[in-house]
Amino acid sequence: MELNSNLLPRPLRGIIPPMVTPLMDRDTLDAAGVERLIEHILAGGVDGLFILGTTGEAPSLSYRLRYELIERVCARVKRRVPVLVGITDTSFVESVNIACKAKDAGAQAVVLAPPYYFPAGQAELLEYLKHLAPELPLPLFLYNMPYYTKLVFEPEMVQAAAEIAGVVGLKDSSGKMVYFHQLQSLLKDRPDFSLLIGQEELLAETILLGGHGGVSGGANLAPRLYVDLYNAACSKDLSAVESLRRKVMQISTSIYSVGKYESSYLKGLKCALSCMGICNDFMAEPFHRFRQAERKVIRRHLEELGIMEKR
Amino acid sequence: MELNSNLLPRPLRGIIPPMVTPLMDRDTLDAAGVERLIEHILAGGVDGLFILGTTGEAPSLSYRLRYELIERVCARVKRRVPVLVGITDTSFVESVNIACKAKDAGAQAVVLAPPYYFPAGQAELLEYLKHLAPELPLPLFLYNMPYYTKLVFEPEMVQAAAEIAGVVGLKDSSGKMVYFHQLQSLLKDRPDFSLLIGQEELLAETILLGGHGGVSGGANLAPRLYVDLYNAACSKDLSAVESLRRKVMQISTSIYSVGKYESSYLKGLKCALSCMGICNDFMAEPFHRFRQAERKVIRRHLEELGIMEKR
Amino acid sequence: MELNSNLLPRPLRGIIPPMVTPLMDRDTLDAAGVERLIEHILAGGVDGLFILGTTGEAPSLSYRLRYELIERVCARVKRRVPVLVGITDTSFVESVNIACKAKDAGAQAVVLAPPYYFPAGQAELLEYLKHLAPELPLPLFLYNMPYYTKLVFEPEMVQAAAEIAGVVGLKDSSGKMVYFHQLQSLLKDRPDFSLLIGQEELLAETILLGGHGGVSGGANLAPRLYVDLYNAACSKDLSAVESLRRKVMQISTSIYSVGKYESSYLKGLKCALSCMGICNDFMAEPFHRFRQAERKVIRRHLEELGIMEKR
Amino acid sequence: MELNSNLLPRPLRGIIPPMVTPLMDRDTLDAAGVERLIEHILAGGVDGLFILGTTGEAPSLSYRLRYELIERVCARVKRRVPVLVGITDTSFVESVNIACKAKDAGAQAVVLAPPYYFPAGQAELLEYLKHLAPELPLPLFLYNMPYYTKLVFEPEMVQAAAEIAGVVGLKDSSGKMVYFHQLQSLLKDRPDFSLLIGQEELLAETILLGGHGGVSGGANLAPRLYVDLYNAACSKDLSAVESLRRKVMQISTSIYSVGKYESSYLKGLKCALSCMGICNDFMAEPFHRFRQAERKVIRRHLEELGIMEKR
Repeated sequence: MELNSNLLPRPLRGIIPPMVTPLMDRDTLDAAGVERLIEHILAGGVDGLFILGTTGEAPSLSYRLRYELIERVCARVKRRVPVLVGITDTSFVESVNIACKAKDAGAQAVVLAPPYYFPAGQAELLEYLKHLAPELPLPLFLYNMPYYTKLVFEPEMVQAAAEIAGVVGLKDSSGKMVYFHQLQSLLKDRPDFSLLIGQEELLAETILLGGHGGVSGGANLAPRLYVDLYNAACSKDLSAVESLRRKVMQISTSIYSVGKYESSYLKGLKCALSCMGICNDFMAEPFHRFRQAERKVIRRHLEELGIMEKR
Repeated sequence: MELNSNLLPRPLRGIIPPMVTPLMDRDTLDAAGVERLIEHILAGGVDGLFILGTTGEAPSLSYRLRYELIERVCARVKRRVPVLVGITDTSFVESVNIACKAKDAGAQAVVLAPPYYFPAGQAELLEYLKHLAPELPLPLFLYNMPYYTKLVFEPEMVQAAAEIAGVVGLKDSSGKMVYFHQLQSLLKDRPDFSLLIGQEELLAETILLGGHGGVSGGANLAPRLYVDLYNAACSKDLSAVESLRRKVMQISTSIYSVGKYESSYLKGLKCALSCMGICNDFMAEPFHRFRQAERKVIRRHLEELGIMEKR
Repeated sequence: MELNSNLLPRPLRGIIPPMVTPLMDRDTLDAAGVERLIEHILAGGVDGLFILGTTGEAPSLSYRLRYELIERVCARVKRRVPVLVGITDTSFVESVNIACKAKDAGAQAVVLAPPYYFPAGQAELLEYLKHLAPELPLPLFLYNMPYYTKLVFEPEMVQAAAEIAGVVGLKDSSGKMVYFHQLQSLLKDRPDFSLLIGQEELLAETILLGGHGGVSGGANLAPRLYVDLYNAACSKDLSAVESLRRKVMQISTSIYSVGKYESSYLKGLKCALSCMGICNDFMAEPFHRFRQAERKVIRRHLEELGIMEKR
Repeated sequence: MELNSNLLPRPLRGIIPPMVTPLMDRDTLDAAGVERLIEHILAGGVDGLFILGTTGEAPSLSYRLRYELIERVCARVKRRVPVLVGITDTSFVESVNIACKAKDAGAQAVVLAPPYYFPAGQAELLEYLKHLAPELPLPLFLYNMPYYTKLVFEPEMVQAAAEIAGVVGLKDSSGKMVYFHQLQSLLKDRPDFSLLIGQEELLAETILLGGHGGVSGGANLAPRLYVDLYNAACSKDLSAVESLRRKVMQISTSIYSVGKYESSYLKGLKCALSCMGICNDFMAEPFHRFRQAERKVIRRHLEELGIMEKR
């Protein structure tokens, strides 16, 4: 574990974008798109890269493709920033398998949401983590994502899990800041334990009030914006925070809000990257890419946001 | 498809037990247990065998183990009854992969619940099925299981899906008989389309009111009981129905109700099979087997039910 | 309690329609409609009348109007059948108040779903009933309606509640027959405790398998149909059950399924009664009556069902 | 409306505590406790007083008692701060009735969550508000409280509702700051429309990022603490925010977290006020007050927090 994790600060801080997975079709990576996307993101000054999360459509991808992605990403990033790899799975054994691939490819950490078919109790979840962590060759971030997994990592459980060797942080995508603040209170004596926020709409307050970083989907599009907001919040520059946050909210209420789908965020993000010429917008089932009408709306939003030039 | 599916009646009728997966540990089959369990079930006169469903803990198992199970089961059953194989997965590609293994091993049909990480809309689900069915080498049963998958196959959607070539039936585990009766109304002109019920507590009324069969978990323990109840209901023998149904309810309120876990059904069923000497009761994470105190309660229930002799 | 409750059989059996509340506007009864509706329902041979339930829009009505309805109904029914009055409320004191009005007006029993703002635990619910029952001047039916109240009366809790003096039965509108069958098992030594089913789509199996009756909304429209189905099921005449049940399902999939509203059942029912000339179709906020286009569809359905003559 | 609403700033800003309702028993106010509690709260420098909300157990109280409370509170407050009165009800007519009482007693505004028995659609909710607002004699605050009401006031709907004459603000208790920030974006051209936060754990970020105030339950106990935090956040004094916020989180993780009840917040708050000698801790059904063991824990927490002196 040593060599890889040398790269991993404790706590991990800053912007760690959850990378979109560029696809040509349901089982073929857009390999050139992957490389362009990595360079686009890294050019923004981010502090890590998280692949195979929800934004990366991981549960919809075959294992073969996930393994290919891990290798391509690690090979391209070349240790410029830490790579975190999602290993969330309903099967304990498959989670370990992915983690081993990640280690071999040169990643720095893995990220796990609760197994999401059978709803386990909190005691069962803790036992799960106690069995799993020793089998993993990389440090582990927990991923609280109750909307998709149905299960919450309850605050007291996280406090107990933080005592397990190898468990180094948590990403919260519950959208409930009371939960996030409870974790901060319970873990106040663990300054090395990373507390990261999923929703980019909550990044400003997270950093202003002592959180460590953000796993901001919009940083696929505009990485510098999120890095700037993170830095402004770190240095308590409230007027810069206010103006940067306004842009972040604009992305949220435009790019992520086309149509009234649960999946508007994912579809909008991938469509925007395609409009920008960065990667293909094919989506794995059960979703499909935006059609022409919606694509025009996304393109107009990108122009209004100043991310693309007006034609 | 022809050879295998010759074995598959249209509609499929009767008792098709959802087989428990006997395990030695989290990634090792209890191979001898698998064989004993198959013979125990088939001796009860069942009309099919469904492996890798919820009762089979499929989502918790590695793909390697699932493939091994498919092969062992098909080899042992030797076409005495149709084998149905669960292919539910969050990844389209992996569902197809399992279906191909099932075909190669000699199974007769596959069973699919909706992909259960990203919540798709009904139109997306229908499109999913339209893309998937042509890729499958075996007939497909839909599996409505909203408690675990969060998604319902809505009645109108099932009506549309029943038009897709290869879609031959539906197993409903929603527990909502109004839904089941709506399907019966909507599909009344499709007498070849199987409508099967999951909950064994609802088997009597399902058959009395025109349903085709039951995927009854308790038939792992006492296959003859469920076959007898099915037959009594088919022949409208209401007094036999009443006394057999009472036994079915007793299993439900005893074996499946030890402790107050969501998982009491699964744990109780596997523990009972172990008490009966049929197979190991190891459970894949996130669950664990019953401990000694609970095992004693299960044993006492089995004695009271007359399934095991009193010591 | 004696005089009124002489009228109340133990257990109460048969069809007890949940009466629609005819309104002229949001705080005015359609008094003539109430009378016509009562006579229409009673002419069908029903075994009781339940007012101020969900179908009666009780939570949307002012207390003044509820009290007026209680008086008018009891005065019109004149003890021809037992009148049951809904007293569900978030306030204990107001539930008692309504029950006292019901007693004074000559009703025979009251019906209570759990208080539905604050979600109480099962122990709190049981305590609630232990405090409430002694304050009530009439026998009490529990009303399990988790969709609207968020709370379930769990089976073990019902078993305990059935020991409280004055608690005489339960109406289940959960739609979960497993729950209903569990209650039957747990209360098999209490033949005087009424178990009634809400959903009319489940009436046939309820009666065939030992339940006592149905609180069938469609009996506002076609009371004789539900009474006939109840009688056929009591006498185990399965072929009559089958043909009557088909008509019940037709009402469900036509009259209750216009538009895609949660409230289609209520709107369709009230609209149909208006088409039939029985009462006004005004609905209390937050709903509104069907408009002309939907009304035409309802009218066509009524003709196809043979409830109204074709024009 | 003019005279009363002169007292109501637009937008309303600051700390507006949701007052606990002191009770002697289920239908008797603790009248002396009401007066002590009002003086305790007002001494803390708050900007308003909100009665008959969730914290005030309004849905559990009889109308008679609610009316008595409105009169006593208005008489005691004597226009020192604006009084806001909860009128949430399942019945449109009863909401209007309470609003009229509030006007007559001298209150300045009313507060309404969606009717919470029948789940209305967003269009129905908007129509509800369009019908209701003209019937109300006082300005109206919306109250977003999906946990208890099951219904959200969706952002676009709030934007439309803000155009209705008399609708002057919204209190959000969803706990979802993304929602709150969306409202801020959508209403950025309506600086007179108050956006208030329910959860006190979110007060700091709300004010730092442009929200107007907080309806903080803890201000029943320690009003000055919340007023100080509000002021520190208004003046962007981040170090004061940090230390005050730590105390607010301590109240949340101690006083509100005794036992594992959904109702721990309410029980803890009322118990603490009783320990402090301010008012009785009787709770309306379906809840009951803390027993002796839990009361000792609350008392110890109050001492540790410095709210009470150590004995």
